[in-house]
Amino acid sequence: MEAFREILEKVKKGAIGVDEGLSLLKGQFYLDVGCAKVDLQRESRVGYPEVIYCSGKTAEQVKAILEAMLERDSNILATRVSLELFEEIREICPDALYSPLARVVAIKRKKVEVPSSYIAVVTAGTSDLPVAEEAALTAELFGNRVERIVDVGVAGVHRLFANLEAIRGARVVIVVAGMEGALPSLVGGLVDKPVIAVPTSVGYGASFHGLSALLAMLNSCSSGVCVVNIDNGYGAGYIASMINQL
Amino acid sequence: MEAFREILEKVKKGAIGVDEGLSLLKGQFYLDVGCAKVDLQRESRVGYPEVIYCSGKTAEQVKAILEAMLERDSNILATRVSLELFEEIREICPDALYSPLARVVAIKRKKVEVPSSYIAVVTAGTSDLPVAEEAALTAELFGNRVERIVDVGVAGVHRLFANLEAIRGARVVIVVAGMEGALPSLVGGLVDKPVIAVPTSVGYGASFHGLSALLAMLNSCSSGVCVVNIDNGYGAGYIASMINQL
Amino acid sequence: MEAFREILEKVKKGAIGVDEGLSLLKGQFYLDVGCAKVDLQRESRVGYPEVIYCSGKTAEQVKAILEAMLERDSNILATRVSLELFEEIREICPDALYSPLARVVAIKRKKVEVPSSYIAVVTAGTSDLPVAEEAALTAELFGNRVERIVDVGVAGVHRLFANLEAIRGARVVIVVAGMEGALPSLVGGLVDKPVIAVPTSVGYGASFHGLSALLAMLNSCSSGVCVVNIDNGYGAGYIASMINQL
Amino acid sequence: MEAFREILEKVKKGAIGVDEGLSLLKGQFYLDVGCAKVDLQRESRVGYPEVIYCSGKTAEQVKAILEAMLERDSNILATRVSLELFEEIREICPDALYSPLARVVAIKRKKVEVPSSYIAVVTAGTSDLPVAEEAALTAELFGNRVERIVDVGVAGVHRLFANLEAIRGARVVIVVAGMEGALPSLVGGLVDKPVIAVPTSVGYGASFHGLSALLAMLNSCSSGVCVVNIDNGYGAGYIASMINQL
Amino acid sequence: MEAFREILEKVKKGAIGVDEGLSLLKGQFYLDVGCAKVDLQRESRVGYPEVIYCSGKTAEQVKAILEAMLERDSNILATRVSLELFEEIREICPDALYSPLARVVAIKRKKVEVPSSYIAVVTAGTSDLPVAEEAALTAELFGNRVERIVDVGVAGVHRLFANLEAIRGARVVIVVAGMEGALPSLVGGLVDKPVIAVPTSVGYGASFHGLSALLAMLNSCSSGVCVVNIDNGYGAGYIASMINQL
Amino acid sequence: MEAFREILEKVKKGAIGVDEGLSLLKGQFYLDVGCAKVDLQRESRVGYPEVIYCSGKTAEQVKAILEAMLERDSNILATRVSLELFEEIREICPDALYSPLARVVAIKRKKVEVPSSYIAVVTAGTSDLPVAEEAALTAELFGNRVERIVDVGVAGVHRLFANLEAIRGARVVIVVAGMEGALPSLVGGLVDKPVIAVPTSVGYGASFHGLSALLAMLNSCSSGVCVVNIDNGYGAGYIASMINQL
Amino acid sequence: MEAFREILEKVKKGAIGVDEGLSLLKGQFYLDVGCAKVDLQRESRVGYPEVIYCSGKTAEQVKAILEAMLERDSNILATRVSLELFEEIREICPDALYSPLARVVAIKRKKVEVPSSYIAVVTAGTSDLPVAEEAALTAELFGNRVERIVDVGVAGVHRLFANLEAIRGARVVIVVAGMEGALPSLVGGLVDKPVIAVPTSVGYGASFHGLSALLAMLNSCSSGVCVVNIDNGYGAGYIASMINQL
Amino acid sequence: MEAFREILEKVKKGAIGVDEGLSLLKGQFYLDVGCAKVDLQRESRVGYPEVIYCSGKTAEQVKAILEAMLERDSNILATRVSLELFEEIREICPDALYSPLARVVAIKRKKVEVPSSYIAVVTAGTSDLPVAEEAALTAELFGNRVERIVDVGVAGVHRLFANLEAIRGARVVIVVAGMEGALPSLVGGLVDKPVIAVPTSVGYGASFHGLSALLAMLNSCSSGVCVVNIDNGYGAGYIASMINQL
Repeated sequence: MEAFREILEKVKKGAIGVDEGLSLLKGQFYLDVGCAKVDLQRESRVGYPEVIYCSGKTAEQVKAILEAMLERDSNILATRVSLELFEEIREICPDALYSPLARVVAIKRKKVEVPSSYIAVVTAGTSDLPVAEEAALTAELFGNRVERIVDVGVAGVHRLFANLEAIRGARVVIVVAGMEGALPSLVGGLVDKPVIAVPTSVGYGASFHGLSALLAMLNSCSSGVCVVNIDNGYGAGYIASMINQL
Repeated sequence: MEAFREILEKVKKGAIGVDEGLSLLKGQFYLDVGCAKVDLQRESRVGYPEVIYCSGKTAEQVKAILEAMLERDSNILATRVSLELFEEIREICPDALYSPLARVVAIKRKKVEVPSSYIAVVTAGTSDLPVAEEAALTAELFGNRVERIVDVGVAGVHRLFANLEAIRGARVVIVVAGMEGALPSLVGGLVDKPVIAVPTSVGYGASFHGLSALLAMLNSCSSGVCVVNIDNGYGAGYIASMINQL
Repeated sequence: MEAFREILEKVKKGAIGVDEGLSLLKGQFYLDVGCAKVDLQRESRVGYPEVIYCSGKTAEQVKAILEAMLERDSNILATRVSLELFEEIREICPDALYSPLARVVAIKRKKVEVPSSYIAVVTAGTSDLPVAEEAALTAELFGNRVERIVDVGVAGVHRLFANLEAIRGARVVIVVAGMEGALPSLVGGLVDKPVIAVPTSVGYGASFHGLSALLAMLNSCSSGVCVVNIDNGYGAGYIASMINQL
Repeated sequence: MEAFREILEKVKKGAIGVDEGLSLLKGQFYLDVGCAKVDLQRESRVGYPEVIYCSGKTAEQVKAILEAMLERDSNILATRVSLELFEEIREICPDALYSPLARVVAIKRKKVEVPSSYIAVVTAGTSDLPVAEEAALTAELFGNRVERIVDVGVAGVHRLFANLEAIRGARVVIVVAGMEGALPSLVGGLVDKPVIAVPTSVGYGASFHGLSALLAMLNSCSSGVCVVNIDNGYGAGYIASMINQL
Repeated sequence: MEAFREILEKVKKGAIGVDEGLSLLKGQFYLDVGCAKVDLQRESRVGYPEVIYCSGKTAEQVKAILEAMLERDSNILATRVSLELFEEIREICPDALYSPLARVVAIKRKKVEVPSSYIAVVTAGTSDLPVAEEAALTAELFGNRVERIVDVGVAGVHRLFANLEAIRGARVVIVVAGMEGALPSLVGGLVDKPVIAVPTSVGYGASFHGLSALLAMLNSCSSGVCVVNIDNGYGAGYIASMINQL
Repeated sequence: MEAFREILEKVKKGAIGVDEGLSLLKGQFYLDVGCAKVDLQRESRVGYPEVIYCSGKTAEQVKAILEAMLERDSNILATRVSLELFEEIREICPDALYSPLARVVAIKRKKVEVPSSYIAVVTAGTSDLPVAEEAALTAELFGNRVERIVDVGVAGVHRLFANLEAIRGARVVIVVAGMEGALPSLVGGLVDKPVIAVPTSVGYGASFHGLSALLAMLNSCSSGVCVVNIDNGYGAGYIASMINQL
Repeated sequence: MEAFREILEKVKKGAIGVDEGLSLLKGQFYLDVGCAKVDLQRESRVGYPEVIYCSGKTAEQVKAILEAMLERDSNILATRVSLELFEEIREICPDALYSPLARVVAIKRKKVEVPSSYIAVVTAGTSDLPVAEEAALTAELFGNRVERIVDVGVAGVHRLFANLEAIRGARVVIVVAGMEGALPSLVGGLVDKPVIAVPTSVGYGASFHGLSALLAMLNSCSSGVCVVNIDNGYGAGYIASMINQL
Repeated sequence: MEAFREILEKVKKGAIGVDEGLSLLKGQFYLDVGCAKVDLQRESRVGYPEVIYCSGKTAEQVKAILEAMLERDSNILATRVSLELFEEIREICPDALYSPLARVVAIKRKKVEVPSSYIAVVTAGTSDLPVAEEAALTAELFGNRVERIVDVGVAGVHRLFANLEAIRGARVVIVVAGMEGALPSLVGGLVDKPVIAVPTSVGYGASFHGLSALLAMLNSCSSGVCVVNIDNGYGAGYIASMINQL
């Protein structure tokens, strides 16, 4: 309601007219590019990148949205980007960086302040790496240091214990696991920091495309674990960044 | 086909006639008590108790089956027995023993040989105890030594490690867990013995009455883990006994 | 691995023997009360209460665990407590407090330091109040200030906007909703703080006991939203406390 | 039963014989084209187009049905049309129009009366556009004015409020959303007109191909919301047209 | 945005101050009764009753909300009301009417204008009557004439045809069915008015508490059918009323 | 269309007028008892009993329907009848017979012709008996000889083989099984008669109230097996009777 | 047990020795072709074709099985045959016939007796034709007359009534439908013959690949309906043939 | 804890320093190859092969892991290997063997001791062979004799009985079945050895990719049956090997 008050004040003072106030209100909200309304409010948090979720969008739509964003010189993150789409993006934005593993495009235009604390991204198995890397790259682009701990699933738990110090040193921990999704529960019982659990669709048969890991993580007997959507590395990186920067 | 050969031999020798052979065949198979056909073949394995699954049966049906069994002086196990049902059972069988925790009735009439190796029954949480106890009592009545390890779930994993020697000493391990069902994966990675995982319906919300634990156990990334039905302590005790007595 | 080094050092110096070191290791881990192993490591974080999840435990088991805890003069939280169970608890612990709405027992023995920032607990409808109150009481007992915002579901969105300042002022926001579970997405788009979404089993028909709200929250199009189990107010309060105290 | 009476009257008067009456009855019902029986009763409502749902039909079948319809000079709508199928359709019907976004073919042969009130088609995200466009084109071909409001999902709710006047001005509102499907609840709380909610299969992981949005919409806490099948833009356009033309 | 403009105008004119404007804004929105925020905007549509969904609310909460509403002399509808709850309601509101079949309480304080067109409420079987009656009573209290057509399910389709005239005469049709939920498809193919389909939890085994009927209705091959939640008679009555009064 | 022709003929001849014809048409269709429309067409098949599915109906409704039927002196079957309901039925119909096992009421008023061939009702376990008995009693009341074969589930397959002759002698076989629902597949591979499979909700944990047996039966690798709803003994008895009487 | 007696008799008479009897028993059972054991017992029912379900089998496996069968000069049915597979089959069996619509191969080597009664195969929509044709061709190859009634789904119910005589004349009716699967219920209420319902995976969104139609058919309120697996035209044709030939 | 004691002893004696002890501890645990941590503890059980689950891993990742393993001269098993991947593997390991049916690569470098008892791998149908072969090859590489019994599903149960001796002679039995998954129950009732049931995704329609077989096996009414994941031949072979070598 803060913004409302300001507008009321200006109108009261006669600094602006009623119609002007109304259009001012609307005009600041978003950028209309036809197929999308680019959210500009998010911009106000300095350094936070714009994000484009590319799945289900045509290359034309992605580029239209991207071009609108590029005019504002902000950092930009695009997720679920195929190699073909990246080729098209690079044409209008030659400094775009691409991770084929995470299928993420990053465009860095602004320097972001990075806190000294770090986020640990813990991966149960090698097959979970794409989702983990999406989380890590998201967190890094949002201005965080990230420590990657790879392949420490519960089947060989000594690998986890040998890396526990790196995990315990983090301010917030992302745990990425498919199959039975047990790792977040184990980590949650070993650290006293918030754990963001990311189920992956890795597994076969009765994993039902990540359902088994998802349910396991939701039912974690360890306190301090919360869950994002299946394969949603981006979402985990985003909220971990939020917490790390509190 | 062994039994077939024997009958063929006897008939060939004229020791028995064709009709006699047929009825002999049929007659040895089961005992007809109207509402049920009590399986007598299982008897031939000395010491193996008869089992009555009481859920969905009336007290009259249970008692009719029981009385037929009692004439044969075998050991008997009845599962899912309410206190009320036990009162009725005790009237026709005063030496019946009852565990209110496991809801199991045991009737011991025969001495059973017990191997020196033992079965470990490992429980994740206190609320899983009824299912674990059903497994343990089943295994004991079938002639096995059982070691109980209680409340060593993954939320406080040091409790598991402090009891690892007792688990590793077993010939076969039963692991009972609800919620995210992570414990069998962890144990499976720490022992080199077969692990029988029993999901329980303990948990709330998205555990969906044990579905989360069941799926987790089926998707265990640890090799050497197999699974029985939700809350099926009896089934776990039975197959663990089979393996322990190989 | 810090603890390991200390023990190695002591044993090296001969300050303690090998056996003593081993038992010292084990002895500090947990308190064995028969049906449970009370986790003592969690204690080391000053002021954090012990927690008993009472569902599926007998009154005897709860009391045995409670008595072991009471000797240590820590704060204690018991969840899913029926009125009958509370009567029994009060006999061995007359200063226990009970919320019939949240079905929570709180025993306060230690003063806890409380940070100045607060947690907002936002509730979609009146029927979601029990879960919300479990979250709020958990957070308070763990040493947090809590702001309750009640009945601001999306059906009458002006109620939410009229309370937006209180929500935006929080360091972390818990949003409790049943039915279509839309509120966390809406709040997530309006605040720049982490949102902990709690689906409730409120609703009928195709809510399938909270599944609809759970899936909606997992699929939130707002970034910065993570999810705990259905009706798991305690879990939300715990992780919100962790984040608020970072 | 009106038609029955007429036939009874004619037969009574001897105007037609019994056999003639029977065949007359049958003959008016549908047009048999071998693989299908084209429904002719729907025709009687002037201006309503014929509709072919092309999914699961071969090009030969679609063309056979189409040719039968074309002889009657009615407007025709074909949905789920691939570009390849459209090429084949155009050969027998050069004035057919195609929307590659909505995958819809429209053939306009008759002038339709259009009421002054309009239908609002509101879309949560850019990826929902194909379904929304199927709804909009259906409604337009059935003789309605349509107002499109794009990309106003709950993650940036100010975009919705900035377009609320256009939505409130409609006689009936179609809301198309994937992921958590929250938008219809929000709109339903802001307008006093019927809302037709269309869940889409947009989303990943635990959206389970639109299940999350579907359940959310069915459980809407806003009154005045009803739901059609996942991705069923056509169905929403059809019923919205019915309501708009009441 | 109409309301915003008015406030801007008043503030501009100096008719009211900034603070006054803000509180005026807030104050008109809802009535705070502690456990709930009673939505007052809905009131502005003359004659529309307030609605209380009683499931999951205590008698105290229901009465608190009710008393706040009674001061405004509006019509009130309460759904999912047990006989016990009704007894308590009657104490504070002696003119409350109760339908034990529909479990609905109606309080009529205002005369409502009723259009001449009517709503048909069609029921597949006798067991679906409670849900159908909830729909019918809701529609009547909102100011509509209702025609009830009972027990015309597809198993004896001649019963439907014998009542077709009454159904076809309606402006909007509610169809209530459990089991295979086929009736809305059949009705949808026979009328040219919008059909609101209400799945019920009537059925056993693989009806899975209404899931079979729900899925059937969502997949209706008849155009012009939309669906509300399982057993949600109220929701169907509400939206049918909206459509009938357009 | 046979009935239509007759009416046309009569009207043509002037034997009846148009209005008379219309009311004659309607009047013969069903008997209106307020809460239900009793289907009278089914009557025309001599000896077929009327059927009342009592679940979800009040005692008043059941009795109203029953009294209408009793006037016609037909045989009547009522299913899902509690003992309390039976007491009420007996008051208005003293010759009603009740099976507490099958929860079925049979009223025999007419002699039915019974073919010499018989229906075999095969039951996997004792707990499946109520459903099996509902099937058997239905078939008997519809005029069939029934052979019951009890407790021959796959766990002790010799019990099945010892009873194979009785099964193979039947004209149609009903197989009732819960848990893994394997028996119909086995029987289907051993007989050359149609098998009606009835899944029951017997089982625990992952049987999910009969889902496991239902899916197993639908996926039977034996040809000649078709399936009815979970616990639907009545439905199986009905269709088996139809087939036996072809 | 008939076969057992014969062998006992022969062995008793000394006509054959024990070993010979055993191998004779085994040898008559099936034909071992390495990857499969071709069931020869089914052969004894004269004229019944052998059946190969080709899905999931390599071309080599199909041909190996086929060649073993071809030596016995029986009729052969192969289902789920791609065009490529058919090309390979034709090389070893030039008289094989192929239906690209039903994806079925038929090899006719023996004359089969055909009863005068016929089977009606009723299809709801054009997209259901492949499954319906699999059913029809199966029934024909098994020696039945088949009447096809196409595209008479409930959306235009007059098409069904115009074809009712052909359906009512059949001895058994197969009804094939996708989407909401309502047609079997409607047909079941209009005929007094057994109805075999075949759900198809036709539909989109919440049809969940045929689940909606399957559940609807299992919950049919019409008696006399039983159900086979989704898209299982073969199974329906097989059991309908069984019933037609009783 | 055995390993801990040894380290304590060595440190106590001064044989090693504290830091050396720590690195010694870590260094023995696993081999870090960047994308994975190869578990070396499993090695200590002589002859047990290393296993690589290749699904979801890039060829580069598989080869990196493989090369690290090859240096240790152990036996290696790789599962879910496409022909393309095998080509790449063969380049760095020319003695690798490949089964295109089971999609398994075996590298034999060490002689393994093989017990005299054997494992029976029983397959219901030809389409289940790939999974069965994965189980059999796993068991063989782990040092077991395997007896394969193919295509003995319940539809032709005489094929099973003719092979019963081979099954009964085994020490542990693996049963592989899709569709209704009935075979393990039948086998479990005929042998007195542990049965490992493997559901396969073979089947169509309502098999839901193996769900029907999985549920059936979990609900087996035969005792002595436990279950692994859908299509998890490897897991079955592994645990059967464990049991066979007890």
